[in-house]
Amino acid sequence: MKLKVTRNILTANEKIAEGNQKIFADAGVFVLNLMSSPGAGKTTLLEETIKRIKDRVKVGVIEGDIAGEDDAIRIDALNVPVVQINTGGACHLDANMISSVLDDLPITALDLLVIENVGNLVCPAEFKLGEQMKVAVLSITEGHDKPLKYPVMFQESGALVISKIDLKPFLDVDVEKIRRDAVSLNPSIRIFEVSCKTGEGLDAWVAWLLTTIS
Amino acid sequence: MKLKVTRNILTANEKIAEGNQKIFADAGVFVLNLMSSPGAGKTTLLEETIKRIKDRVKVGVIEGDIAGEDDAIRIDALNVPVVQINTGGACHLDANMISSVLDDLPITALDLLVIENVGNLVCPAEFKLGEQMKVAVLSITEGHDKPLKYPVMFQESGALVISKIDLKPFLDVDVEKIRRDAVSLNPSIRIFEVSCKTGEGLDAWVAWLLTTIS
Repeated sequence: MKLKVTRNILTANEKIAEGNQKIFADAGVFVLNLMSSPGAGKTTLLEETIKRIKDRVKVGVIEGDIAGEDDAIRIDALNVPVVQINTGGACHLDANMISSVLDDLPITALDLLVIENVGNLVCPAEFKLGEQMKVAVLSITEGHDKPLKYPVMFQESGALVISKIDLKPFLDVDVEKIRRDAVSLNPSIRIFEVSCKTGEGLDAWVAWLLTTIS
Repeated sequence: MKLKVTRNILTANEKIAEGNQKIFADAGVFVLNLMSSPGAGKTTLLEETIKRIKDRVKVGVIEGDIAGEDDAIRIDALNVPVVQINTGGACHLDANMISSVLDDLPITALDLLVIENVGNLVCPAEFKLGEQMKVAVLSITEGHDKPLKYPVMFQESGALVISKIDLKPFLDVDVEKIRRDAVSLNPSIRIFEVSCKTGEGLDAWVAWLLTTIS
């Protein structure tokens, strides 16, 4: 009788994520997985970013929400291709959800595909979608304890966008601690402080993004 | 611009589980996903079951553990085909892990394939493998509060095997409460009380199993 031991098996999600990654590479599109808590301002950051780059790069968006299509309607108003995924309860996107909507986007015509994940600081960081880079958004209103409390999100991300920085004078939040803890978890993470209300910091973020995807 | 809303998407795991289910149906093999806490006696129940049925049905086994191959060696000693999966940290088997070892088993020659999941009362119940039935094992030493504390396991299972019933005189455990709560969660669940030490209850369990898979 044969006893075979199989080690280090890919999970179902990783298997499909590898397939997506190949499709994206063949299509020559840079794929960014945008993650944050609910209400940190992912969609607003995405709107402001698209406005600033859409004449230079072709952008497409996949919106992930448990239910509803509000975010996709906002992106649609900017005249970029967008698909809304409703997970029907799941607290994160997974690779098969992405795989199943790729035919609804002009992938080969895109330079950048942004996948806006479900608002959640935990699970989205643990499920690969086939992206080249994860970016975490953290609103300063969430407090400076978040990197150490939700380390995987910060360990996995190539950049951290600290949002709503215009509220800094009204909050007792130590932004330097956020920076310090994020870097301690991930020494190569790039950190941007932005306000989509005042526009502060957006130029630096956009310049970095354009360099990264080119 | 096109806005498309996609609802009720299959997860990556469900997608691969559907593929497995089709392979098992085509091969004519009944697949049983055996789940419990660590140390409830899944492997011992499986050994005793195999001894009693292997002259009548062709049995194969997939052993799932975070690490190690002890369980597969025990099954191998009974001269039935067995593959050991080491998840390398994951607390449950998933559909892709099963898919990736199917070539190592003589699936089409089997009547029954038992998948012994990783010892864990939570996650194994949430990840379909492509099986036709789940069976939960609960040792009476775990206490009578378990069905209400871990409801999904009991809701998803076609049968509950209450094990180590020989220890009943020495424990302050209300087995009737386990039965009552399991049935309240899942009115169609079949419940067996067994002791692999004394053999009590094994005939009833085996008779039911043989009827179910035929």
